[in-house]
Amino acid sequence: MPGAHRAAGLHRPRPSSPEEPPALEDQDLLLAAAYVSDAQYNRNVPFETSPQAVRLYHFYNHWTMRAATYFFIWVDLALALFEEPALFPLPFLATSIAEVLCLTAFFGRLVHFAKVTPQMVFWKDTKNICIMVTIVLTLIDLITYGSLEAVNIHGVRWSRALRPVFLINFPESRQIRRAFRSIRNTLPDILYVFLLFIFSVLIFSLMALKLFGDRGLKTVQGSPYFTNILDIAFELYVLVTTANSPDVMMPAYEFNWWYSLYFITYIIINTYIFMSVFLAVVYNNYRKHLKNEIRTLAYLKRHKMIEAFNILKIKVGTEFVVKEAQWRQLAKVVEPDISSSHLELLLRISDEGQKGYVDKTNFLRLADLLNIQVVTINIKRHPLETWMPRVYQSSPSLLVQKMVRHRIFVWVYDVIILINAIFIALDEKNPLISYAEWLFLSLYIIEILLKLYTYEPRAYFGRKQFWNWFDTLIIIAALVATVANTTIQSARKYNSQQILDIVLILRILRLLRVIVSIQRFRVIVTTLINIGPTMLTFGGLVLVVYYVFAIIGMEVFHGKVHFFDPGSTSPDALVCGNPALKDSAFARGRYCRNNFNDLPASLILLTELTVVNQWHILADGFALVTHQAAKLYFIGFHVVVVILIVNIFIAFILEAFFVAYSLEKSEVETAIEKKIQELGVGVQEEEVQDGKLIDNVDAKDSGFSGDDGDNKRKALKGLYFRIASKKYKTVDALLQQMFESEIAPEDEGPSLEEILNFSPSDVHPKNPNFENSA
Amino acid sequence: MPGAHRAAGLHRPRPSSPEEPPALEDQDLLLAAAYVSDAQYNRNVPFETSPQAVRLYHFYNHWTMRAATYFFIWVDLALALFEEPALFPLPFLATSIAEVLCLTAFFGRLVHFAKVTPQMVFWKDTKNICIMVTIVLTLIDLITYGSLEAVNIHGVRWSRALRPVFLINFPESRQIRRAFRSIRNTLPDILYVFLLFIFSVLIFSLMALKLFGDRGLKTVQGSPYFTNILDIAFELYVLVTTANSPDVMMPAYEFNWWYSLYFITYIIINTYIFMSVFLAVVYNNYRKHLKNEIRTLAYLKRHKMIEAFNILKIKVGTEFVVKEAQWRQLAKVVEPDISSSHLELLLRISDEGQKGYVDKTNFLRLADLLNIQVVTINIKRHPLETWMPRVYQSSPSLLVQKMVRHRIFVWVYDVIILINAIFIALDEKNPLISYAEWLFLSLYIIEILLKLYTYEPRAYFGRKQFWNWFDTLIIIAALVATVANTTIQSARKYNSQQILDIVLILRILRLLRVIVSIQRFRVIVTTLINIGPTMLTFGGLVLVVYYVFAIIGMEVFHGKVHFFDPGSTSPDALVCGNPALKDSAFARGRYCRNNFNDLPASLILLTELTVVNQWHILADGFALVTHQAAKLYFIGFHVVVVILIVNIFIAFILEAFFVAYSLEKSEVETAIEKKIQELGVGVQEEEVQDGKLIDNVDAKDSGFSGDDGDNKRKALKGLYFRIASKKYKTVDALLQQMFESEIAPEDEGPSLEEILNFSPSDVHPKNPNFENSA
Repeated sequence: MPGAHRAAGLHRPRPSSPEEPPALEDQDLLLAAAYVSDAQYNRNVPFETSPQAVRLYHFYNHWTMRAATYFFIWVDLALALFEEPALFPLPFLATSIAEVLCLTAFFGRLVHFAKVTPQMVFWKDTKNICIMVTIVLTLIDLITYGSLEAVNIHGVRWSRALRPVFLINFPESRQIRRAFRSIRNTLPDILYVFLLFIFSVLIFSLMALKLFGDRGLKTVQGSPYFTNILDIAFELYVLVTTANSPDVMMPAYEFNWWYSLYFITYIIINTYIFMSVFLAVVYNNYRKHLKNEIRTLAYLKRHKMIEAFNILKIKVGTEFVVKEAQWRQLAKVVEPDISSSHLELLLRISDEGQKGYVDKTNFLRLADLLNIQVVTINIKRHPLETWMPRVYQSSPSLLVQKMVRHRIFVWVYDVIILINAIFIALDEKNPLISYAEWLFLSLYIIEILLKLYTYEPRAYFGRKQFWNWFDTLIIIAALVATVANTTIQSARKYNSQQILDIVLILRILRLLRVIVSIQRFRVIVTTLINIGPTMLTFGGLVLVVYYVFAIIGMEVFHGKVHFFDPGSTSPDALVCGNPALKDSAFARGRYCRNNFNDLPASLILLTELTVVNQWHILADGFALVTHQAAKLYFIGFHVVVVILIVNIFIAFILEAFFVAYSLEKSEVETAIEKKIQELGVGVQEEEVQDGKLIDNVDAKDSGFSGDDGDNKRKALKGLYFRIASKKYKTVDALLQQMFESEIAPEDEGPSLEEILNFSPSDVHPKNPNFENSA
Repeated sequence: MPGAHRAAGLHRPRPSSPEEPPALEDQDLLLAAAYVSDAQYNRNVPFETSPQAVRLYHFYNHWTMRAATYFFIWVDLALALFEEPALFPLPFLATSIAEVLCLTAFFGRLVHFAKVTPQMVFWKDTKNICIMVTIVLTLIDLITYGSLEAVNIHGVRWSRALRPVFLINFPESRQIRRAFRSIRNTLPDILYVFLLFIFSVLIFSLMALKLFGDRGLKTVQGSPYFTNILDIAFELYVLVTTANSPDVMMPAYEFNWWYSLYFITYIIINTYIFMSVFLAVVYNNYRKHLKNEIRTLAYLKRHKMIEAFNILKIKVGTEFVVKEAQWRQLAKVVEPDISSSHLELLLRISDEGQKGYVDKTNFLRLADLLNIQVVTINIKRHPLETWMPRVYQSSPSLLVQKMVRHRIFVWVYDVIILINAIFIALDEKNPLISYAEWLFLSLYIIEILLKLYTYEPRAYFGRKQFWNWFDTLIIIAALVATVANTTIQSARKYNSQQILDIVLILRILRLLRVIVSIQRFRVIVTTLINIGPTMLTFGGLVLVVYYVFAIIGMEVFHGKVHFFDPGSTSPDALVCGNPALKDSAFARGRYCRNNFNDLPASLILLTELTVVNQWHILADGFALVTHQAAKLYFIGFHVVVVILIVNIFIAFILEAFFVAYSLEKSEVETAIEKKIQELGVGVQEEEVQDGKLIDNVDAKDSGFSGDDGDNKRKALKGLYFRIASKKYKTVDALLQQMFESEIAPEDEGPSLEEILNFSPSDVHPKNPNFENSA
């Protein structure tokens, strides 16, 4: 129990000689480091505090262990590619051995976790139970299927649909679990809206039956129009998704134009109003629970940092503090790769008065300090300047540098890109144009060389210099691909399809460089890139749902629809190999390739269903080759993915946008940034990006070479720090920062049990800003 | 100038006898009433303060004048029904006379306004200039068209597209103008996102051309696939709207399944991310400007109330106040129909200490007080109880009443409605079922009669008793329609189509009563109904855009596509009377009725375009019969309506939802409500709805008949007040209330000029709650 150890740590007598701090016991340091590291990465694993368990816990969190777990999860998921119906068929024995291997790995990880965490906690955690149950079920399924197969009975591998359980339930997938929790929390609220919506669809169906059923109208295909209540309900559900508008209305509209009012009313109520209400409900819940989760995270972090402090603290005067040496040791254990200059900076920030120790308030900030990506810029002269100063500083060389830095240089290259675009659009069979391609490539390479001549290369290719990297990589890739293509072409008189495609795409992606030179575009793209990491969460969420639906779809619809090669003259090709599809819209639209015959095809089909359009044709097609009830599969997919997940995606993008916007206004400067500025070792993000860095640094550098007598500056001389821009932070991090700025530094927060049982309606502490904006 | 008069009013000596207030000069009273009325309705018209102008201003604001203006606006807009291409053709002379009449009316209204408002202000207002220019242009157009027509040259009536200018620019259409302003403010922000989006579409088009152009692929229709850059760009734009998914992908997907990744990437970037960013940008701007507008409105209101106070104030002791008699006169002028008991209640609230005068703080609340719909409930016994108390109070009668009030009574009727629904769904050719219809009708009527027997009829049918009214009206309408239908049927052996349809619809609408008995459904529906009034603003906005597009569409595409009766055997019917449509998807889908041949058809077509699905088929069809450039019309409509207006609609619904949600939590009880409760004359909304009112009142009534000696209560004895529920307020009103509760009562706000020039970034006053939540 952490609590017990905390009490022990509190009363341990410590030697109080201030000069020579005693060698701290290793286990204490490791325990504190575990707490700090958990706080840093927002991990929430209650672990045993015995030295052995702590060491195991560090090992549990080691990146190799986590990477191995993810590797086995992916292997397990990828097995669907090799199992019947397979893209690359493998014998059942091979896939089942691979699966058992994966299960063993998962079990091992679970056992490791059980050794780290207290018994009570382990068995109360549904995540662990879930994993164990799934392992057992999978084994049972494997054995049954194997034995049935042995006597030539074809079984159903139902446990495959459970595989995403592993992806969700390992502690590492916190984000995906959170997204699922968010959906689960939304369900009760959305249920009543959904029932009302279904009620409204049914009322309209009844009306349609009475209004149009006896008219003897025909659809375009000549089938009777609106005569069966179930068909009508399905058609009207499809109309909510707008997929059959205006076709579904045309027969009635042709009969009498007044009837169009029925459909317009229906669309306004069910498509516009109800769908917006769904979005509103999902968004509202997303916000509410996001706030709650952020609050919990923030308090847990504070809690862990206090635990760590209590382990390391010693009394100096009236207050408890942590000695500098111990602080340094701790930081080194938590972040073994930290550079000593970075560590020095953090210490300067934490130990403001240079008193030789870090007080509690500053100690609690350690996790945040480590989380802030401080980029160390080792400012040096341009290598050419060092090697041949005379040539580099000569007037033609200076002129070149001035030219490259000028705005017109950018414009000239924008024009070149535009001309390039026109050339690409033209036919490249013309040899002149294909020679022009080489010209453009060399122009781009000259540009990069000129820039490297002008700017310091290590600054130009610094970390987080996204646009420079982007620019250069695109050009180099295009160069390599073009050369490779030409070589293959001339050597074998054969145009490699794949390489040619890649060259084409790279050649066109080069045009994206125009974005770099338009400030407004760059801002939008940066915002979108920021959303990227969290969008991966949605990727995980979508993957889980897709995988489950794909496995079910493959079991149910596999082999019902066949794709024939476009050149095939077989009469079956017209009905996708299934006579039931004769005269269907599915066959007429040549949708044969949209089938469930292997995993990639299923996933692509599910993507089409997510886009919604024509989903009713796909649903109809698969209902024709099986049973009308098959439509329920497609309706279920629509409700889960489009009504729930896509709306959460939209809610997330809206929220990300608003948080970014509100921070832009409030200009929250964190303590760390201020400190860097105070210490005079800060460099503005913009300066680096605009290439002004070197100029500025030169100026400052000459200042430094004189005797400024500033002790702080001297210690870090020649080194500049820059905080990786706030723009690159995730929404979560921004929200957490907003919330933390409102907890008083001395506030230790509620107890651990209270934190874990927060409900969205509690307000802790009363902070109207955060409550309202988050 | 109001300011000048204010100064005059300030220093006018007043007789100070407190007992007998002097007869206030009429013009002062009228002027103050004009200010209060403007504050009440959030009007913002600077008017002259001369007695004559004030009287004209009252007349200008009279409901008959406003109704007349709206009447002429609607007549003017409706003229499109009678002009070529007409639904009901009228000669040019008739429509032009009607149009000139409307123009005269508009001009008259403008002249009236010019007399009311100061010259300077009048000529600086773009609204007035707009109206005048439009009148002149319309006249010019009428004359040119008429003279061309006289010499048999067919001209274009282009000025018809300007007609919505009148709807937008009269001061009454403040809401629509605000929506337009909101769009205009969003434009700069959205422009760059839109450009980036177009850039992305072009890059992808270029890639598609290079990847698929030379493959010799064919679409399902057999035409070449992705060979022309303009066609590709159009197809990809359509793909953003998802209207041609997955068809556009199928040829490439059939060729090689890797190519589906190109389309999936495209959809993720352009459909999901960019479209969400559009929503986010529109929503963000909507919020920002909404806050600003609300702030302006709140300060203007305060400003006007101060003007009114300054006119009427007299000095009592150290403070300026308004005498009760003057206050009463003022309220009577502002709201001539106010009941004396209501007035008495408001006075009690304003003059807390019953000192015979109203102080400034309370006076400033007058506009709000008048705005709050207080429902006066005149509590009486059930008429039957008065007429025959013995029978009504007898035990069988009491049993009936108890039964009706019981929960099971509601459930029984829910079951009856369900059985009714099943009967409706069954075939009604069966005579038994058509008799059952009469049974159900009589059961419903018995229910209403029983309820009227149990509850006091005037309370049951009180204002704002929405659900009771709804219930009863549906039943009565169904009864009337069924009887009418049967009569016609038996008399003439002929089933009138229209009446039958109406009966059918009413019979089914009756099922909606189930909603009433499920509390959660009632809440959702109430929220939706609240959104109703402001949704009319969107109705106006959409109407304006639709009208302009419809007029342009009718001029350009009129007569190009013809609709033939479904029974027609003419070969032209298959190509909608235009050979250019041969083999087109437009003709194959039997879309002939989707044309621009009259106003209703155009509006229905535009609605279909708003729903988006199949819009590319419609666009293609009209491009085939005219020119490829016609697609620009359809793309323009998509950008304006779907990207801008539909997103604003969604933003509005989201905001309405969040505001409603945040108020639900904060439980803001307004001062007025508290006062009503303090005075002991309040009745809870729920009590009335649940039918508990009469019971409660009976109990209180008997308490009153004893001597409780409470002065306040006695004065209003027998009368109960109820505030029309907060639930029925609009988002604007709620937001304004939130903001006003944060302005200090003594804060007079910034000057008039400052108010009118508020920009969204000003914060006045610093109120984080409002800023964050609005």
